[in-house]
Amino acid sequence: MNLLFSSQIEPAQRWLPLLERALPQDRIYTEPRDDIDIALVATPHPGIFGKLPGLKLVQSLWMGVEKLLEDPELPRDVPLARLVDPGMVGAMSETVLAHVLDWHRHLYFYRRMQREKKWKRRGQSLPSDRTVGFLGLGELGTDAARKLLALGFKVCGWSRRPKRVAGVHCSTDLGEILGMSDALVCLLPLTGQTRGVLNAAAFARMPKGSCLINVARGGHVVSADLLAALDAGQLAHAYLDVFDAEPLPAASPLWTHPGVTVTPHTAALTEPRTAVPKVVENIERVRRGDAPLSLVDFAAGY
Amino acid sequence: MNLLFSSQIEPAQRWLPLLERALPQDRIYTEPRDDIDIALVATPHPGIFGKLPGLKLVQSLWMGVEKLLEDPELPRDVPLARLVDPGMVGAMSETVLAHVLDWHRHLYFYRRMQREKKWKRRGQSLPSDRTVGFLGLGELGTDAARKLLALGFKVCGWSRRPKRVAGVHCSTDLGEILGMSDALVCLLPLTGQTRGVLNAAAFARMPKGSCLINVARGGHVVSADLLAALDAGQLAHAYLDVFDAEPLPAASPLWTHPGVTVTPHTAALTEPRTAVPKVVENIERVRRGDAPLSLVDFAAGY
Repeated sequence: MNLLFSSQIEPAQRWLPLLERALPQDRIYTEPRDDIDIALVATPHPGIFGKLPGLKLVQSLWMGVEKLLEDPELPRDVPLARLVDPGMVGAMSETVLAHVLDWHRHLYFYRRMQREKKWKRRGQSLPSDRTVGFLGLGELGTDAARKLLALGFKVCGWSRRPKRVAGVHCSTDLGEILGMSDALVCLLPLTGQTRGVLNAAAFARMPKGSCLINVARGGHVVSADLLAALDAGQLAHAYLDVFDAEPLPAASPLWTHPGVTVTPHTAALTEPRTAVPKVVENIERVRRGDAPLSLVDFAAGY
Repeated sequence: MNLLFSSQIEPAQRWLPLLERALPQDRIYTEPRDDIDIALVATPHPGIFGKLPGLKLVQSLWMGVEKLLEDPELPRDVPLARLVDPGMVGAMSETVLAHVLDWHRHLYFYRRMQREKKWKRRGQSLPSDRTVGFLGLGELGTDAARKLLALGFKVCGWSRRPKRVAGVHCSTDLGEILGMSDALVCLLPLTGQTRGVLNAAAFARMPKGSCLINVARGGHVVSADLLAALDAGQLAHAYLDVFDAEPLPAASPLWTHPGVTVTPHTAALTEPRTAVPKVVENIERVRRGDAPLSLVDFAAGY
């Protein structure tokens, strides 16, 4: 088969050698052609989709596809697959654990004390005293939830459709989950329904002194409401990896607020070494005539 | 039996109600008496040991006993037990994981970038690319090692006596372990042999750009050598919870060095809710005439 690799962000030299080794019988191009069967894309170069008449699959190289879905050139009659990369899933759990433990062990507080040269201890909680809530219980949420359960935390989670995850209190009632979550982790897809879900009303339902970890998309959080909740002491700290505008503009008050930790959209990167086997699996499914895995539901938006 | 609770630091009101509920047949005192059978101590009030002629066991309320062993009043003919508190062991693993993940996900670096309002990404490593080394493979080291293995890290460890821990490369060769450790976690007891073990020669053997996590005792680290290794870029970051003098004096350069995270000896606190069952277990062993658990080897110093 003929494959096209097109990305303005993912470096081709990290992907092509691995793809070529795994797919010796296929040809991989970086420019559009009439005979391309499968396009492997992440922020593809503009105009490519109009030049691929024989396309059988668009395989995203990222898990999040909201930018692709906004692209008017994306063909709606060709299946689109998200990438569920085990390395990226593991990376996201590492970041979620890092932030949950930073908050649970008061490390954000001790950093503030260090700046003032203050030796000031806070009491310790057992993980069983703490409930970590997830918004979104897909591949990312369930992996992080499982690892937090193994450390002894209580875990709950909200999803649009009913789900069952062993050991996790699952609910489709957003208010219930907000009210239980000492630390709230947002891992939702960004859709019309989830935009702005983390707003003043949501923060008011959370337990006083809780923390927010947003590793999904900037559009989930109403920043002004978040800053107000931090200033009021309703939230103790926020860990933000994603923003409405990226890079985060220098004028944003999020950079300097003492209650905000900013990271540059690096919570979890796609890892070609673990992603390529998943891409290859979908290519082989197309070759055999089977349905590809992780297909996007265009109506749901993810 | 008659028990004495004596501590200048541990708050009696967090321990006594739990001890009284678990030991209804015993009497618990807070002042010395001739008929005390077991002393429960953590930095006990001075002079008490001379007033306890019938003592059968000194039960530390902490895992570290180096201060007790320095106390000239401590009777050498009465068994001394360390406290292996599952809550404290779990807390230590939480702190070790928090720091390892902070380093692995470059969060210490992104905090520096945040202060400069710089949106600058670093590449991501898989946990299988990283080796975390432990100095000390006792209860604390093995619990943290197991949890890091579950996240996919490679783990090695050094101990004075040969040990076997599933999945962990164990060695009695300190230089070998230093040379392998991208992140080095010190969990040693402080003895004549381990004082100053983390010095210029040790840092020089570690891989360039590695990090140090000291959650044992301040005496393990030669601070001037550490600052030199950080300034030279040999070490990327140091997480220090313990210091030669505590509270850390305001004049210490550790407070302000950009490569150092200071926490106020809070990596893991004894947790009465999980510790009391272990204290009660040793009390019951004395009552039955069995040997108490976790006895200190006075010659080894831990």
